[in-house]
Amino acid sequence: MTENVKESKAVPEPTLRRLPTYVHYLTHRVKKTRQFISTSEIAKALKLDPTQVRKDLAVTGITGTPRVGYCVAELVEAIGNFLGWNNLTDAFLVGVGNLGTALLGYQRLKQYGVKIVAAFDTREKVVGTEIHGVSVMHVDKMANLAKRMGIHIGIITVPAQAAAEVADKMVRAGICAIWNFTPTSLELPESVIVQNMDLYASLAVLSRKLHERLK
Amino acid sequence: MTENVKESKAVPEPTLRRLPTYVHYLTHRVKKTRQFISTSEIAKALKLDPTQVRKDLAVTGITGTPRVGYCVAELVEAIGNFLGWNNLTDAFLVGVGNLGTALLGYQRLKQYGVKIVAAFDTREKVVGTEIHGVSVMHVDKMANLAKRMGIHIGIITVPAQAAAEVADKMVRAGICAIWNFTPTSLELPESVIVQNMDLYASLAVLSRKLHERLK
Repeated sequence: MTENVKESKAVPEPTLRRLPTYVHYLTHRVKKTRQFISTSEIAKALKLDPTQVRKDLAVTGITGTPRVGYCVAELVEAIGNFLGWNNLTDAFLVGVGNLGTALLGYQRLKQYGVKIVAAFDTREKVVGTEIHGVSVMHVDKMANLAKRMGIHIGIITVPAQAAAEVADKMVRAGICAIWNFTPTSLELPESVIVQNMDLYASLAVLSRKLHERLK
Repeated sequence: MTENVKESKAVPEPTLRRLPTYVHYLTHRVKKTRQFISTSEIAKALKLDPTQVRKDLAVTGITGTPRVGYCVAELVEAIGNFLGWNNLTDAFLVGVGNLGTALLGYQRLKQYGVKIVAAFDTREKVVGTEIHGVSVMHVDKMANLAKRMGIHIGIITVPAQAAAEVADKMVRAGICAIWNFTPTSLELPESVIVQNMDLYASLAVLSRKLHERLK
């Protein structure tokens, strides 16, 4: 049912960002016994506009039935298929500090389609160890291994000043999608997908809004 | 120079999100000896539109001088003032798992205006310990302490299913800004500022784009 829609392109990023929220809501907050759910109910629970919800869910190829709504199980599966959660994608992580270590322990990443298969660092005290079941190797081994294993996703959790160099190494090793947890704005070829997970950008929004509130 | 602008309201969120990127660029990638920098140079380095850069920076009250540009030091300071980085705001963190522990170790949060002064959890093995210099207490003590200390910011790093309850407790204790690291969409009064830092939303964008690329 979702096959034909996989050909469509350029789904808006806000829609992509909301899709996991729908799954989370449908999986954890809707009763397991419920078979169907309406757009308006989803919209109300998540404080979204019903038209937006309908548009978002349509990208997966699932359309609700008038007066009946969506089949909950079908919807969850369609979103997962659409986001590629059912084909685990192997990823490398570079930088096993606090945040890197936390990500290695995030079992849930697997549910969301990404499996970190190896981690890299330069510090003697972590190279050669295993963290949350993932081997930590010296970063010099990263490029060769990435090529050999055909790795597509690179996760960067190094200190900001090291991010650019790591990203360049990743791209030269054939990695084409980078999840960047540093505040460094990476200068990479257009063809590389970069998703920034910038704590400080998020914190800036929070701080400023609070600042305005408390004035 | 920035005083009068503090009165202005509703700066667009994308602008707020970009402000730390400017500071990072000016601090780490522009030579320390440089006194001035032009809009177009900043725009080029960060792959942004020059008009956008000018608008973004104008919210801080700093305007560049034609043919000279911005004074680098003045600009960094103005952005910091605007985002409230110079008045540390005390925060509580609830949920000392992998991610919570990582955040407690993030010294840089202080540079960005937030200081985590206490952490909370329910698990015996962490309650009563100290992690990265921050005491971990039982979550039952959170509300009273937050009221007594006048805490405004709450950081939620608990498992998703516990997020709603923790958020409610925080709000009842007077916390008015929540940094939510769980995929749970929180239902809170309009007056509460919620900033979601959703790993899975970010990952969904990355996965889907990669999926489209590899097709």
